[in-house]
Amino acid sequence: MQALQFTAETSAAGVRERDFTLGDIPGVLWSPVSGPERAPLILMGHGGGTHKRWPAMTGRAERLVNGGGFHVAVIDAPGHGDRPRTAHDEQEIAALLRAREAGEPEGPVVVRYNAHLAERAVPEWRATLDALQELPEIGADGPVGYYGLNMATAIGVPLTASDARITAAVFGLHWPDALAEAARRITVPVEFDMQWDDEHIPREAGLALFDAFASREKSLHVNAGRHKELPRFEADSAVRFFVRHLGGTVAEPA
Amino acid sequence: MQALQFTAETSAAGVRERDFTLGDIPGVLWSPVSGPERAPLILMGHGGGTHKRWPAMTGRAERLVNGGGFHVAVIDAPGHGDRPRTAHDEQEIAALLRAREAGEPEGPVVVRYNAHLAERAVPEWRATLDALQELPEIGADGPVGYYGLNMATAIGVPLTASDARITAAVFGLHWPDALAEAARRITVPVEFDMQWDDEHIPREAGLALFDAFASREKSLHVNAGRHKELPRFEADSAVRFFVRHLGGTVAEPA
Repeated sequence: MQALQFTAETSAAGVRERDFTLGDIPGVLWSPVSGPERAPLILMGHGGGTHKRWPAMTGRAERLVNGGGFHVAVIDAPGHGDRPRTAHDEQEIAALLRAREAGEPEGPVVVRYNAHLAERAVPEWRATLDALQELPEIGADGPVGYYGLNMATAIGVPLTASDARITAAVFGLHWPDALAEAARRITVPVEFDMQWDDEHIPREAGLALFDAFASREKSLHVNAGRHKELPRFEADSAVRFFVRHLGGTVAEPA
Repeated sequence: MQALQFTAETSAAGVRERDFTLGDIPGVLWSPVSGPERAPLILMGHGGGTHKRWPAMTGRAERLVNGGGFHVAVIDAPGHGDRPRTAHDEQEIAALLRAREAGEPEGPVVVRYNAHLAERAVPEWRATLDALQELPEIGADGPVGYYGLNMATAIGVPLTASDARITAAVFGLHWPDALAEAARRITVPVEFDMQWDDEHIPREAGLALFDAFASREKSLHVNAGRHKELPRFEADSAVRFFVRHLGGTVAEPA
């Protein structure tokens, strides 16, 4: 098993931030500056076209660390952030841009390309989790959650279906086409976000993916607005969801 | 205008509880024992077959007072609690029991009877709000919210559509048949609860009522489970919704 290499560390506003690499995968681990000896871990995925330090990632990490006392790990997805793109990545990105410029639906390209990325990303996440669990402040038997929307749902659904260490997950903003089968194997608590006026994902598609989860405890949060208008308070809701299911430390920010 | 008559008062665990009557309508006003001179008011409705002191009412009132610093008022709906039933009430209750015993859908009776009750209840609520706003700790220009599920949604939707003093509302667990038209006139922020496995209200019906609200800000919370299995954490979510929109005092209970 490969070990994490920490390459940089800073602390600010109660959050300790460490860059790491696992082989050629770069990531960031955010942790409480002070707190109990061990705390639950949230694996967090970024959306398509963004990366591990995208504002949505740093903002959610801060909420999870200060609001729940969690450790939060993000890695760059294949072909994203500091990682090289393959010829296949370039082809699919070009296909997406062509669809956008032609005013055609993005869904078919996103569904297909994200499914491809998930095949590459799931083993990377499992190796990253193996390595993170070697850290004494996380540990091999501590609670683990997964939090990822958009492309990070396309990766997180098959990851959660195949890794029993993940016991609670927040997903959202994706189609059921490539994911419903894996979702039907997920029985852990799920919170699922969708946008009622999503210009890319039809309502029926979002509802069908929510419906597919086999979880006895699952919640759907629908908000009025377009694809990119998910309200910020859903990030606070995700913190509370993980506190309920993984047992973090409640500290609601004002 | 009639004035509220307070008939009893107790205080416990940070909550001041006052029984009142407005003419022949009995109600309860829950308030913070200490706090700012004025605070927003939540009008809260009870479900069919229950009353102003049903455990769901006292539990939500405690959360709203201690979690948001709100005043919370509940009145007995017509034919409920300490109020007499008319011959028409008795007929409709008998029709509901017959449908239940025969294993027939309750929806048609509930929709029809609740629409009738709403016609009686809306003017009562408006008179109650007039009288509550005479109290110095509430005031005529303070923020007002409405919180009611089941029958209290059947009453609250036409009430909110017709009374501009209500600027945020939590509804849920009802059919669109008699309510969609009023919902289309509501533009204030709405949070709407439904149950994914509701044995009485089809999914399409709940989604259609949510869809009908004209509000730019609206959130739908769907949870797995049957009609009566709405999770308790939705009451905490309602507190946060009212804090966001009416400006209460944040105090998340652990």
